[in-house]
Amino acid sequence: MKTETVTVDLDNRSYDIMIGPQLIARAGALIAKRLPHVRAGIVTDSNIGALHLPELEASLKAAGIASTSIIVEAGEQSKNFPTLETVVDHLLAARLERNDIVIAFGGGVVGDLAGFAAGIVRRGMGFVQIPTSLLAQVDSSVGGKTGINTAQGKNLLGVFCQPQLVLADTDILKTLPEREFRAGYAEMVKYGLINQPDFFHWLEKNRTAVFAGGKERIQAIATACRSKAAVVERDERENGERALLNLGHTFGHALETATGYNAARLVHGEGVAIGMVLAYQFSAWLKLCSAQAAGQVEAHLRAAGLPTQLEDIAGSLPDADTLMNSIAQDKKVSNGALTFILTRGIGKAFIARDVPAAQVRAFLMEKLRSPH
Amino acid sequence: MKTETVTVDLDNRSYDIMIGPQLIARAGALIAKRLPHVRAGIVTDSNIGALHLPELEASLKAAGIASTSIIVEAGEQSKNFPTLETVVDHLLAARLERNDIVIAFGGGVVGDLAGFAAGIVRRGMGFVQIPTSLLAQVDSSVGGKTGINTAQGKNLLGVFCQPQLVLADTDILKTLPEREFRAGYAEMVKYGLINQPDFFHWLEKNRTAVFAGGKERIQAIATACRSKAAVVERDERENGERALLNLGHTFGHALETATGYNAARLVHGEGVAIGMVLAYQFSAWLKLCSAQAAGQVEAHLRAAGLPTQLEDIAGSLPDADTLMNSIAQDKKVSNGALTFILTRGIGKAFIARDVPAAQVRAFLMEKLRSPH
Ligand SMILES: NC(=O)c1ccc[n+]([C@@H]2O[C@H](COP(=O)([O-])OP(=O)(O)OC[C@H]3O[C@@H](n4cnc5c(N)ncnc54)[C@H](O)[C@@H]3O)[C@@H](O)[C@H]2O)c1
Ligand SMILES: NC(=O)c1ccc[n+]([C@@H]2O[C@H](COP(=O)([O-])OP(=O)(O)OC[C@H]3O[C@@H](n4cnc5c(N)ncnc54)[C@H](O)[C@@H]3O)[C@@H](O)[C@H]2O)c1
Ligand SMILES: [Zn+2]
Ligand SMILES: [Zn+2]
Repeated sequence: MKTETVTVDLDNRSYDIMIGPQLIARAGALIAKRLPHVRAGIVTDSNIGALHLPELEASLKAAGIASTSIIVEAGEQSKNFPTLETVVDHLLAARLERNDIVIAFGGGVVGDLAGFAAGIVRRGMGFVQIPTSLLAQVDSSVGGKTGINTAQGKNLLGVFCQPQLVLADTDILKTLPEREFRAGYAEMVKYGLINQPDFFHWLEKNRTAVFAGGKERIQAIATACRSKAAVVERDERENGERALLNLGHTFGHALETATGYNAARLVHGEGVAIGMVLAYQFSAWLKLCSAQAAGQVEAHLRAAGLPTQLEDIAGSLPDADTLMNSIAQDKKVSNGALTFILTRGIGKAFIARDVPAAQVRAFLMEKLRSPH
Repeated sequence: MKTETVTVDLDNRSYDIMIGPQLIARAGALIAKRLPHVRAGIVTDSNIGALHLPELEASLKAAGIASTSIIVEAGEQSKNFPTLETVVDHLLAARLERNDIVIAFGGGVVGDLAGFAAGIVRRGMGFVQIPTSLLAQVDSSVGGKTGINTAQGKNLLGVFCQPQLVLADTDILKTLPEREFRAGYAEMVKYGLINQPDFFHWLEKNRTAVFAGGKERIQAIATACRSKAAVVERDERENGERALLNLGHTFGHALETATGYNAARLVHGEGVAIGMVLAYQFSAWLKLCSAQAAGQVEAHLRAAGLPTQLEDIAGSLPDADTLMNSIAQDKKVSNGALTFILTRGIGKAFIARDVPAAQVRAFLMEKLRSPH
């Protein structure tokens, strides 16, 4: 199977995303070719560390890249201040310098945490992403957003830190739990829903092939990366259009907060799946798009085995006011008014500024009262 | 007395440094004019908080800028992880948004800490510097370097975060302890020594007038800012020339580490004063500049009441090996080789790469054995 390369064009900070099989084995050589003489601090989590770290370490060593490994606990709770401090302390104790690299080897959690560390150690070190979850391969490893959570909410602290190379090894997805694969699939569907209706319809046809692996999977990941790269190129710092990538995320984040970031109840991509359905239903409720479009989105995500409704979440949820409160603290608030990603149909998302909080609240009240 | 304005030209991130009397009283109006509709999180320290915070708060309020104040303990030890966490938590709890501003109201410690917070909260908020120490007015508030210290050394964590406005109120220096004024003076002298011999000679003639206040002081601060701005404009991220600003700092940082950042023994600018004399003496020792130039630098700093020799530091110092070790951990190390700012005379500093550590060590051994 062929390796695909997507280039993110950001002038002198441009970088390649390589997507294909057996990239871990080639990682050392691929890095050494582009970044000669670097040493590396690998950040990974306990799951990926146990399964795949020896292969990456061997690959670096074979290419003459000295490395040190930092293993954090798997899970969202590692995106916090104490873990960040542990990571930067380790990088500094290893005497890594500005021109050396941090390698994020894991899912979005590791990518966000390691990227933040790379962005602040010595005011910015080199950075390479080796995403191992589908979500990280199609979303979090591309575009340079990094960060951690605080008591006030998700991703409230961070920096923009573009990687110098992204290696998305599609073989490594074989050990990814099915549920995590589905969660990443939700983010892939997102690009179709935002502005690529053809991709959404292609996924409707090729979903089972993408889940099965093979060339359709590589193609789908590459399409997703290309789609994200295009948005990031036009609006790196999210002053405008990049906000479209938050489709489904305002509701999704509120649900993640409501479930205490408890992965047993909800993982990020699942929150996004429900959030996207809510965004379509809210758009339909506002008479912006058809109920049929909302139904089509829900049907596709449900067919992929994703949760799509509030009652798909195990356990009880807080009331509409509590959800609203957590939405208001979300970072997509500008001078008190709510900014929402709404849609006029499949592939027709848009940024709606000044959405009245009262409308969101009324919609949520209905949803919470009579589900379906 | 006239207010001087120095512009730091960084394309769409350009900003003004205003230097003159009574700028705290005008701060609200000056900010509101440039950044309409912002709210502010003021970060200050216990000393400046007690002396000047009410005036700044009143000035903002009069201009319609809502603000919240965060007071950290005065002193270098506040540039640490726990204090950073306190500051960002407060900014988030106050629900400040991306377009709101953090105001650093204090010396270099507050500037570095608050700037780092501004750089990472919501991946970057607005930022205004109101430096209150001479050192902060001529150095740390200009150029966008921010950061905190870690167990491994000074300023090892941080981001580049350019302010949108710098207000250097020369009246506020009236309450600055004399010793801190002298420390800031050392950084001012640094610009003369790097590449502006005329400014050094001007300071030799006008030193007492600069210490007395008045128009010479404003002129000297503006010249220093202009000098730093020119370097930053050419090399914002310190890939080259900006390293010149570290003249005296490699030795200085090692001395700060050796004295445990204990301000009773040594403050930053004093470390820089001794460090600059050592840099000249080391350059003379290497036959790069004349002993006469080194003597002239020492004489001027000594006349200003600054420490200039190792034995001016109260208490005992560690041996040459320990100092070398701390120099090697300093961030101006590239692939193991030592980078030093050396000089060929007054205003003739240059970046020397690959200075053998053995030579630095031999020089330090001599200095520690037979002072003078
Ligand atoms: N920076 C961005 O632009 C961006 C975008 C989207 C999401 N995110 C962030 O990404 C995070 C979610 O990412 P995620 O879903 O990858 O979570 P994750 O990193 O927690 O990974 C999910 C789980 O899968 C495991 N795992 C990952 N790869 C594996 C593999 N190949 N084999 C076996 N197990 C594997 C992990 O150990 C973890 O238990 C969230 O914190 C979210 O905020 C960031
Ligand atoms: N970011 C940069 O580019 C840069 C450059 C140089 C130095 N620095 C940093 O700056 C720091 C040193 O700055 P500093 O010397 O201003 O230290 P500081 O901030 O600790 O201030 C020195 C002392 O003077 C007090 N003070 C300040 N202004 C006062 C006033 N107007 N009236 C009364 N008291 C006042 C402070 O409370 C403190 O006790 C160091 O941490 C150094 O690393 C940063
Ligand atoms: Zn997401
Ligand atoms: Zn300094």
